[in-house]
Amino acid sequence: MSELKNDRFLKALMRQPVDRTPVWMMRQAGRYLPEYRATRAQAGDFMSLCKNTELACEVTLQPLERYELDAAILFSDILTIPDAMGLGLYFEEGEGPKFRKPVRTEADIEQLQVINTASDLSYVTDAVSMIRRELQGRVPLIGFSGSPWTLATYMIEGQSSRDFARAKTMLYTQPELMHQLLDKLALSVIDYLNAQIVAGAQVVQIFDTWGGALSHAAYQEFSLAYMQKIVSGLIKQADGRDVPVILFTKGGGLWLEAMADTGCHALGLDWTMDIGAAKKRVGDQVALQGNMDPAILRADPATIEREVQGILASFGAGNGHIFNLGHGITPDIDPQHAKVFIEAVHKFSAN
Amino acid sequence: MSELKNDRFLKALMRQPVDRTPVWMMRQAGRYLPEYRATRAQAGDFMSLCKNTELACEVTLQPLERYELDAAILFSDILTIPDAMGLGLYFEEGEGPKFRKPVRTEADIEQLQVINTASDLSYVTDAVSMIRRELQGRVPLIGFSGSPWTLATYMIEGQSSRDFARAKTMLYTQPELMHQLLDKLALSVIDYLNAQIVAGAQVVQIFDTWGGALSHAAYQEFSLAYMQKIVSGLIKQADGRDVPVILFTKGGGLWLEAMADTGCHALGLDWTMDIGAAKKRVGDQVALQGNMDPAILRADPATIEREVQGILASFGAGNGHIFNLGHGITPDIDPQHAKVFIEAVHKFSAN
Repeated sequence: MSELKNDRFLKALMRQPVDRTPVWMMRQAGRYLPEYRATRAQAGDFMSLCKNTELACEVTLQPLERYELDAAILFSDILTIPDAMGLGLYFEEGEGPKFRKPVRTEADIEQLQVINTASDLSYVTDAVSMIRRELQGRVPLIGFSGSPWTLATYMIEGQSSRDFARAKTMLYTQPELMHQLLDKLALSVIDYLNAQIVAGAQVVQIFDTWGGALSHAAYQEFSLAYMQKIVSGLIKQADGRDVPVILFTKGGGLWLEAMADTGCHALGLDWTMDIGAAKKRVGDQVALQGNMDPAILRADPATIEREVQGILASFGAGNGHIFNLGHGITPDIDPQHAKVFIEAVHKFSAN
Repeated sequence: MSELKNDRFLKALMRQPVDRTPVWMMRQAGRYLPEYRATRAQAGDFMSLCKNTELACEVTLQPLERYELDAAILFSDILTIPDAMGLGLYFEEGEGPKFRKPVRTEADIEQLQVINTASDLSYVTDAVSMIRRELQGRVPLIGFSGSPWTLATYMIEGQSSRDFARAKTMLYTQPELMHQLLDKLALSVIDYLNAQIVAGAQVVQIFDTWGGALSHAAYQEFSLAYMQKIVSGLIKQADGRDVPVILFTKGGGLWLEAMADTGCHALGLDWTMDIGAAKKRVGDQVALQGNMDPAILRADPATIEREVQGILASFGAGNGHIFNLGHGITPDIDPQHAKVFIEAVHKFSAN
């Protein structure tokens, strides 16, 4: 493996000093980039792009050609695990992900098998290996997975949802059945992320996109407990370095202390949280990643710079900040505005 | 005016002792009730029902016939103010509210006039007067309005939205224009709520449905500041009693202290917040209203009762709790389950 030339991101995750705040963007390989749209058109649909090792590698590297990012993130989807379980993931133009065979009954859940990444999801680990090789040590590579609860919502609803009616009904009326599903998913995620680490991922992030839809008590029992289990089950070191774990629960600002107690290395923050307040609550325990509202990228460069400065000032002195958006960059953003954002982070944080 | 026979709700709002915890449900006059659906069919569309004084009064009282609720809430919509401003509110079956003439430009906003409730929205105050009379003092009557920010999002987007792209773009690129809009809305809401109080509303609630989509800093500047202005502008007493004000920002759990500082009497909580933790933070300053996940009403009676007991236990001893759902009751709920919920609150909180 090539030696790592830029370890700013890894250092910040371990709350060590850095020369300037590292930055990457959730969904940085995405539709806002014309070169991404061109490669995707070549691949056909979204899942064909995910499953094509060369093209998945190509789109992963595209934003690094444009911007001075401090990390690469595997191009893939959060729903590969349920797809590998046989639910039949598909995407309709202009709509979110859907499953041909949603999980609704006890029998559906009993039939689900914990995935074996080596046989079921080799396209993901192949992509990780190739990306890591092609990166040649420029920046670290992030692997990722959806959280068990987030995967379960899509599997039960069959698609995205506003109020998670079916998933919550199962949670409240058949909690043991829900736990059975979440347990299979947690074991699958452990296998999946460990396989990504073995293949070359240097950091992993767990995306708990829908944890924030749960009540305080249900979040602890049905989302956080399974992320905790995953954190405990992950490979701790690779290439002689720690493999940091980032937990990101969108809408989880009330639960930061409990999240930090899982033993993860960093928390992803959405934009509703003041990062300085978050640091006061958990900053002696974990690094913090975030948290500019992606909507700000629609504004003029001066506004983007001012907002970046505001977040840097709120975090203040000390280690353990990775700059990011509070959620994924959206397709309508001008790539030039993303450049302003990334350069502003480096410019205004330089020691 | 008839003497108030059940003042449990008003006492709890003022953090005075009560014999049992008062309870009402957001959207308690709604589609889950067959008698509501029958009256609505009679009225035609949703806005015709809002504008028909007799029928609006009828549906307001319907849930009180079925359940031992401790408050009535005016049947109306949060978007009556922009409708009165000329934006043309309409509803399409199975979709949310829409505006025929959304507000997009500086000229659009400059042309908007602060509403005069007496001339522009007399159908609302007529309904309030009639409901208050028909209630004959059984329980207090709640008036309400959307918050300026929440109204602005619908006015700018023209409909509900997932990410508020247009509204946030205006907020970040033309903040003065956004302030101009919010200021007109705040003045309109003050006039509107005061007219409801004069007509007979004994409590008012401000619904800030989309405040939780804002960043920490933007929430303070673009939503909370205007709710503060409204609280300061409201009539303080009617019929020799204080008129309590309830602020409800969905997703606002991080900002309770700032909300309590507006001088309001109570905060509405969504279900993501542990009510005991909220009480520790602000319970010496305001009453708390909430906060069961409405999804729990889909579960069996034993589960509903257990969840009610959990919330009562979390709030614990002391005054200032009004039981409610964390958001509106949904159309798919069995009315019998709503009954179980309401009876459980009274049963398990009786002194």
